[in-house]
Amino acid sequence: MYTIIDGKAISEQVKTEIAEEVKQMMAAGKRAPHLAVIIVGHDGGSETYVAHKVKSCEQVGFTSTKIMFEDNVTEIELLAKIEELNNNKELDGFIVQLPLPKHISEQKVIEAIDYRKDVDGFHPVNVGRMSIGLPCYVSATPSGIIELLKRYEIPTSGKNCVVIGRSNIVGKPVATLMMQKGYPGDATVTVCHSRTKNLKEICLQADIIIAALGMPEFLTGDMVKNGAAVIDVGTTRVPSDKTKSGFRLSGDVKFDEVAPKCSFITPVPGGVGPMTIVSLLKNTLLAAKGEIY
Amino acid sequence: MYTIIDGKAISEQVKTEIAEEVKQMMAAGKRAPHLAVIIVGHDGGSETYVAHKVKSCEQVGFTSTKIMFEDNVTEIELLAKIEELNNNKELDGFIVQLPLPKHISEQKVIEAIDYRKDVDGFHPVNVGRMSIGLPCYVSATPSGIIELLKRYEIPTSGKNCVVIGRSNIVGKPVATLMMQKGYPGDATVTVCHSRTKNLKEICLQADIIIAALGMPEFLTGDMVKNGAAVIDVGTTRVPSDKTKSGFRLSGDVKFDEVAPKCSFITPVPGGVGPMTIVSLLKNTLLAAKGEIY
Repeated sequence: MYTIIDGKAISEQVKTEIAEEVKQMMAAGKRAPHLAVIIVGHDGGSETYVAHKVKSCEQVGFTSTKIMFEDNVTEIELLAKIEELNNNKELDGFIVQLPLPKHISEQKVIEAIDYRKDVDGFHPVNVGRMSIGLPCYVSATPSGIIELLKRYEIPTSGKNCVVIGRSNIVGKPVATLMMQKGYPGDATVTVCHSRTKNLKEICLQADIIIAALGMPEFLTGDMVKNGAAVIDVGTTRVPSDKTKSGFRLSGDVKFDEVAPKCSFITPVPGGVGPMTIVSLLKNTLLAAKGEIY
Repeated sequence: MYTIIDGKAISEQVKTEIAEEVKQMMAAGKRAPHLAVIIVGHDGGSETYVAHKVKSCEQVGFTSTKIMFEDNVTEIELLAKIEELNNNKELDGFIVQLPLPKHISEQKVIEAIDYRKDVDGFHPVNVGRMSIGLPCYVSATPSGIIELLKRYEIPTSGKNCVVIGRSNIVGKPVATLMMQKGYPGDATVTVCHSRTKNLKEICLQADIIIAALGMPEFLTGDMVKNGAAVIDVGTTRVPSDKTKSGFRLSGDVKFDEVAPKCSFITPVPGGVGPMTIVSLLKNTLLAAKGEIY
């Protein structure tokens, strides 16, 4: 029998722990951690994510500030706001919700954020420090995956871990974390991607598979060995006539086929997804406590 | 028959190309690229490396400055010198030769260097930008390995590349470069290390093996499949009664056993080693031309 990794339950548990810490901080006379979120335009997905982030801040007792710009905001205006937030001493961390309109350089925006307030962990200083193994803000999805492995005490040392996907926000950083010394880590890590030729063979040797390529139901039962732990990072909206919204979220894993072979598996939704927001909250808490920089 | 990758010849070729560019720069009225090297104490290895670096600068027409400190220099004095070099507009790049005496934090020193002058590529900004795939100073050994693959036109796309060793200066960065989009890259990359359980099996599936663990003659013939390309990064001093110095350099590869199975193989010495200095020269040239920052 396989265990379904309950990301929703774990995320609630971590939020309770964070809320407890916030209470103690405030009892000690400190102000609440404060996160700001910048959102540009009216992308449906982005608005939903930001609303979740703001709500999660309330749940754990953080102060949150939502800063909205219209689609036609100039890069200069956005960078000026970032500079203002960098200098705001009442603010511990902030993020700019991606994607941005095409006339604004996402990379320029990311690098404009003071890395000490970069709780999304996208600034090169945080990416580099993570790679080197120094204290830093780890980005939300890799951090959430690691937390799930830890909470379910899934063995990683000496295990073959296959990461499918080499994106900057999931594949590459989670591979780095899985090969680091200590637990969770010490895994033998293989990164596969669109150019990989013998993917099925490679996956069949994996004790842990992290699927992060963004192709619905890509990982099928015949690619997974018995007893593997499977982490599904995919969240693609696919049309559905069974939901009111007209779509449903699909993972990268063909759950019904893969699950029976697994020791552990994350569902979509309710697996990695809910963990990403708590990773952001954890980074903000670390920022408020001054524990990284 | 296998091809011995001649790192010495390639390094001379790259130096000739760099010298040509320097001539053109100077003909256009610009000053020569200028590299400074800080060395602390009298470690034999370090003194040799620094002497090579200074000599190589001369060969290609760079200006070089060697700055020596005794073992008892304080961290504050060293950091003050770094600050001075950061602000010196006549200087394009500089490095602090490692290792440093134990009373000085290497990480603090590395982070004190302005990343725009960090031609060793060790600063978190450069490490992070490399991971993300942005222009940056790539550190010497990974950069040298990539250059060798390129000059010998060794196919990498879709190939299985096994990196043995997960160090910050070789294993992790070269793995990142090998999985990047484009050539040389697009490889399926597996990073192995001391905790890896089935190393021989994994190596036997590799089209390219990069051995960077620092254990003399670790990779033996039975671990390599026919036609593999093998890059040996090891340079361990082992005692020898056949040399005047009383030691010889040993690679991580048992050359006599492994070479006959290979398509390409680097020798030690004369493989990756000579490439590291030219990578430093290339970064300094890029710095002088302002091509990265």
